[in-house]
Amino acid sequence: MSRRLLLALAGGVGGAKLAFGLARVLPPDALTIVVNTGDDEVFWGLHVSPDLDTVMYTLAGDVNPGTGWGLRDDTFYVLEALARLGIDTWFRLGDRDLATHIRRTELLRAGHALTQVTQDLCRRFGVSHAIVPMSDNPVRTVVDTDLGVLSFQEYFVRHRCVPRVRALRFDGAETAKPSPAFVEAIQRAAAVVLCPSNPFLSLAPILALPGVKEGLTAVTGPKIAISPIIAGKAVKGPAAKLLEELTAEPATCVSVARMYRGLCTHFVIDREDEAHRSEVEAFGYTVVVTRTLMETEEDKVALARTVCVLAGVLA
Amino acid sequence: MSRRLLLALAGGVGGAKLAFGLARVLPPDALTIVVNTGDDEVFWGLHVSPDLDTVMYTLAGDVNPGTGWGLRDDTFYVLEALARLGIDTWFRLGDRDLATHIRRTELLRAGHALTQVTQDLCRRFGVSHAIVPMSDNPVRTVVDTDLGVLSFQEYFVRHRCVPRVRALRFDGAETAKPSPAFVEAIQRAAAVVLCPSNPFLSLAPILALPGVKEGLTAVTGPKIAISPIIAGKAVKGPAAKLLEELTAEPATCVSVARMYRGLCTHFVIDREDEAHRSEVEAFGYTVVVTRTLMETEEDKVALARTVCVLAGVLA
Repeated sequence: MSRRLLLALAGGVGGAKLAFGLARVLPPDALTIVVNTGDDEVFWGLHVSPDLDTVMYTLAGDVNPGTGWGLRDDTFYVLEALARLGIDTWFRLGDRDLATHIRRTELLRAGHALTQVTQDLCRRFGVSHAIVPMSDNPVRTVVDTDLGVLSFQEYFVRHRCVPRVRALRFDGAETAKPSPAFVEAIQRAAAVVLCPSNPFLSLAPILALPGVKEGLTAVTGPKIAISPIIAGKAVKGPAAKLLEELTAEPATCVSVARMYRGLCTHFVIDREDEAHRSEVEAFGYTVVVTRTLMETEEDKVALARTVCVLAGVLA
Repeated sequence: MSRRLLLALAGGVGGAKLAFGLARVLPPDALTIVVNTGDDEVFWGLHVSPDLDTVMYTLAGDVNPGTGWGLRDDTFYVLEALARLGIDTWFRLGDRDLATHIRRTELLRAGHALTQVTQDLCRRFGVSHAIVPMSDNPVRTVVDTDLGVLSFQEYFVRHRCVPRVRALRFDGAETAKPSPAFVEAIQRAAAVVLCPSNPFLSLAPILALPGVKEGLTAVTGPKIAISPIIAGKAVKGPAAKLLEELTAEPATCVSVARMYRGLCTHFVIDREDEAHRSEVEAFGYTVVVTRTLMETEEDKVALARTVCVLAGVLA
């Protein structure tokens, strides 16, 4: 009999941290990490998958600890040379990181699906847990702002999330298929975890794919969401700002809980948000209060262990 | 009235050295350097134009002086990372060099012709003399060897010219058009110089393009070839080996002179080959004996000055 599978849905840095902890706690056949690809973009002809790479580099122990993304001790000689050639280099790709994108682009052009390409890259980086793109079809997050309609990376990197967001859309999501490994993981999952990733930018694209919400609803085991908002603030990124811009209410873990209402059974909030417990319980969740800030490796493993206990997937 | 134009045909390192000298002696409006693109190849999705880059980097004063190609003091972090991803990295591209290929590929994909892309790159590298690809259409040198049919770079770089060559062909040459700037230079040229480049691999592809031989024949001024063979040896590369394999006679400047017979009016040989003077004259050439080995900057300028005097293009 195969192990009880935990399906984790993740985006960038916050999701990658919990995924790192989960991969420490669970063996490869007990964990599938499905990652947002709505942030993918082509730079200078190279297919960049920021969230997939952040999770892969983090699990490989090779992520830049200063930023939470990119590779440790990477150099930027190509980027500097591109700048000298007059190329706008607001999207900063390191030299070693570029090799990943060159390899990915080459394999995609040769006709391989992003799932297989990701598998190949993970093997090369020594990652044995399954990191799966949400879809092999293109989905692109588009941000409608007071500066106009921006691609995700224009909004996120070039404009540093400063523009006020009016709406988000996920181009291609209606027709994209969840990747085969994602579909299989939904069918096999004993439990699901929504990592503390940005609900609008990281998890909404995954949930927008046809059949995903229905599939997750059909999972009978625990479905656990962890709030990326602690004491009204996002640990990293624009989650709090977006919550305020798109829901017109102060950013709290309660606003996040409202978004996953009906989808998840458990909601994990930080000790600093203990005061919100009853509000979140009112949505029908089993609420768990614990330390959710992941600063050290021990933090990541501890939160992952809590999730796995709730999920009932520990061996 | 516009200046008298010298049209130089060049390939890689040897051609680039003379082109460097010519660019020191002549102003930009008196020189057009047309470069072989039969060596172009796509690596990891990136369009690499080795001969164009060698000439551009040399004229920019930025070429690696140790190899004669690639960029000075380049690093290889991307290449090392590609190797760790399991990619065969027999074609060694430096980090700064890669930026050139990324930029070229991006502009080509955006629909620009190789001529315009080369112009853009040259401007960025501070090169003001015209470096022109022989064609904007793909031409690919294919080498039929005792190891089988190889692409040019497989033969030249991967197998280091070791396989015995049985025949060469230039795929696409019959239908490719000489680039517009090449056609214009042929029409305007007061004189032509065939740089001391490999006659089979660097100059033959240029001469194989439709109308080029006829156009050069119609140029009434001096047409000067410089032997890349000195005392039976090529200064660099497989010219001597190829001469022996493809003509079944010892490699001398005489064999090269035979190849350009009827096309050129002047043939420049090295002092070491003085003994061959009458044999070359017998082909109908005006023979010039001088130092043709280009080791120092002074060598390059001196040979260029000799060529310009013969060509009658000095102001």
